[in-house]
Amino acid sequence: MIFSQERALNKLEAAFNAHSPGDSPVELYEPINYIISLGGKRLRPLLTLMAANLFSEEWDRAIKPAMAVEYFHNFTLIHDDIMDKAPLRRGKPTVHEKWNINTAILSGDVMLVKAYDLLLESEGSKLREIIRAFNDCAAKVCEGQQLDMNYEGTENVSIPAYVDMIRKKTAVLLGFSLKLGGIIGGAEEKDLELLKEFGENIGLAFQLMDDLLDVYADQEKFGKKVGGDIVAKKKTYLLITALEKSNEAGKKKLISVLESQSLKDDEKVKKVKEIYDSLKIKELTEAKMSEYYNAGIQKLEKVKAPLIRKSHLLRFANGLMKRES
Amino acid sequence: MIFSQERALNKLEAAFNAHSPGDSPVELYEPINYIISLGGKRLRPLLTLMAANLFSEEWDRAIKPAMAVEYFHNFTLIHDDIMDKAPLRRGKPTVHEKWNINTAILSGDVMLVKAYDLLLESEGSKLREIIRAFNDCAAKVCEGQQLDMNYEGTENVSIPAYVDMIRKKTAVLLGFSLKLGGIIGGAEEKDLELLKEFGENIGLAFQLMDDLLDVYADQEKFGKKVGGDIVAKKKTYLLITALEKSNEAGKKKLISVLESQSLKDDEKVKKVKEIYDSLKIKELTEAKMSEYYNAGIQKLEKVKAPLIRKSHLLRFANGLMKRES
Repeated sequence: MIFSQERALNKLEAAFNAHSPGDSPVELYEPINYIISLGGKRLRPLLTLMAANLFSEEWDRAIKPAMAVEYFHNFTLIHDDIMDKAPLRRGKPTVHEKWNINTAILSGDVMLVKAYDLLLESEGSKLREIIRAFNDCAAKVCEGQQLDMNYEGTENVSIPAYVDMIRKKTAVLLGFSLKLGGIIGGAEEKDLELLKEFGENIGLAFQLMDDLLDVYADQEKFGKKVGGDIVAKKKTYLLITALEKSNEAGKKKLISVLESQSLKDDEKVKKVKEIYDSLKIKELTEAKMSEYYNAGIQKLEKVKAPLIRKSHLLRFANGLMKRES
Repeated sequence: MIFSQERALNKLEAAFNAHSPGDSPVELYEPINYIISLGGKRLRPLLTLMAANLFSEEWDRAIKPAMAVEYFHNFTLIHDDIMDKAPLRRGKPTVHEKWNINTAILSGDVMLVKAYDLLLESEGSKLREIIRAFNDCAAKVCEGQQLDMNYEGTENVSIPAYVDMIRKKTAVLLGFSLKLGGIIGGAEEKDLELLKEFGENIGLAFQLMDDLLDVYADQEKFGKKVGGDIVAKKKTYLLITALEKSNEAGKKKLISVLESQSLKDDEKVKKVKEIYDSLKIKELTEAKMSEYYNAGIQKLEKVKAPLIRKSHLLRFANGLMKRES
């Protein structure tokens, strides 16, 4: 079947609609259907289908495994939202808010099991390889979340430590999504590695873009409140770089603004932004982002597949960097 | 290698000691090593090894998969203890008490992933079958836990509903442990089904024994406080049967004792026990327990394997019913 992103997305949505993770007890399965129905851009399963299409016209054979990736991603969202005490997800109440923490723990657990169920529906002899790669990815995602929580209570987080954390928490799953599609499409080992590296680099760029948008997005187009990370004193690439670029006095000033009890949120955001601007943090972050992005594209370039098929991934990667929210 | 329970247990403990689920970040992996180090009787992995030994002398090939079962079981303990707000597990602080809830959620998650990792270490061509059976079991265990939580807030739980819950929450994992060993040992489909049914029936008998011991154990030998379920107003086979056997007045009386604010715990336990005795609840529970136990043994009897090899399982099952704590 000829691949198009629209067709892939339609097929995915139809598959999600047709798929039931289970029925009874409803308290366990309703939250799964709920979080899947909240939508999102389905970036990860799309990557799986695009990667399968690089090597095979039968990319739709990868639909069930692609759904597994989305299931896994949403399982992490359910549990992360508990840990982060997040009230909203995609503008709707999080699972632990709509139900309760116990139901969120347990339906998350079963959602992870159901992700493995969907992986089992990949045909052929690659199952061991698929599950090994998935386990490796899943453990890293948990490690990334733990590091993220650790860093909340840490004064000094270095740039390499931050990059290691976002690689595990975010980038590794994009890498796996692509590798999974490659395995199902029949790619060679070398191309699988390239796809994984493409995904991880794009993932890092994607996360830096996220950090950047939080401060520099156009409020009109941005889904959340601009400056949320600053108000939450979240350690982002911008903040860590600013701390690293500052002298002692500058560092003290930045921290005092962030921790100020008297400044209003808007003033805080404005002042931190001024400091960022004076240190050229936007430019530094954009440069790093381009570095990862370009490194990723170079990996994709080396994959043995026709350019016309790579074009979907190229457009997709480009779209990730052009987003405004 | 000639099987003995002692040898199997030694091999298991050595394998647990030699196995590292991961190192970094320590916050994520320490709780896994901690809960595994708390010990327990390793009932489930022993069942896997015994079942493998029914069909193959190379039962030690099943050690890694047997560890997977113990990992899975301990993952459920970590998460269940959060949900039940349990302070102690095997006499030591639970993971969420020793660390915190977030760490308990996350290290539980990664422990489930590591269980799949251990399953991957089963050799041969049965991987899909193993993971399918494991997923089926894992989902049922989550369903059982959800039902257990649902029943806490429910006035009327029928005996069949209670049995359905304990089957999923407890018995199904014993069934899977045996089936897993059978698959690895090379059993035929029919014997796998018999082993699973043997395990589930023994599991139901085991749980009824648990319910019974809570009220009728010898306090000297019992690890916990006798009557704990009564004080916690927990719906057990004994309570549900007593409510079912009582007339309206009796039911009211039993509930009023259970919900009394003025009675001391000891008095409450004594009064409920008197009601149980008058209704012959001990005898009724023992009869039901024997029914499941005997049904289980009949399944084992039909398995095509030498009696000398079945003897380990028979002794083991018998030991479960003779326990005093």
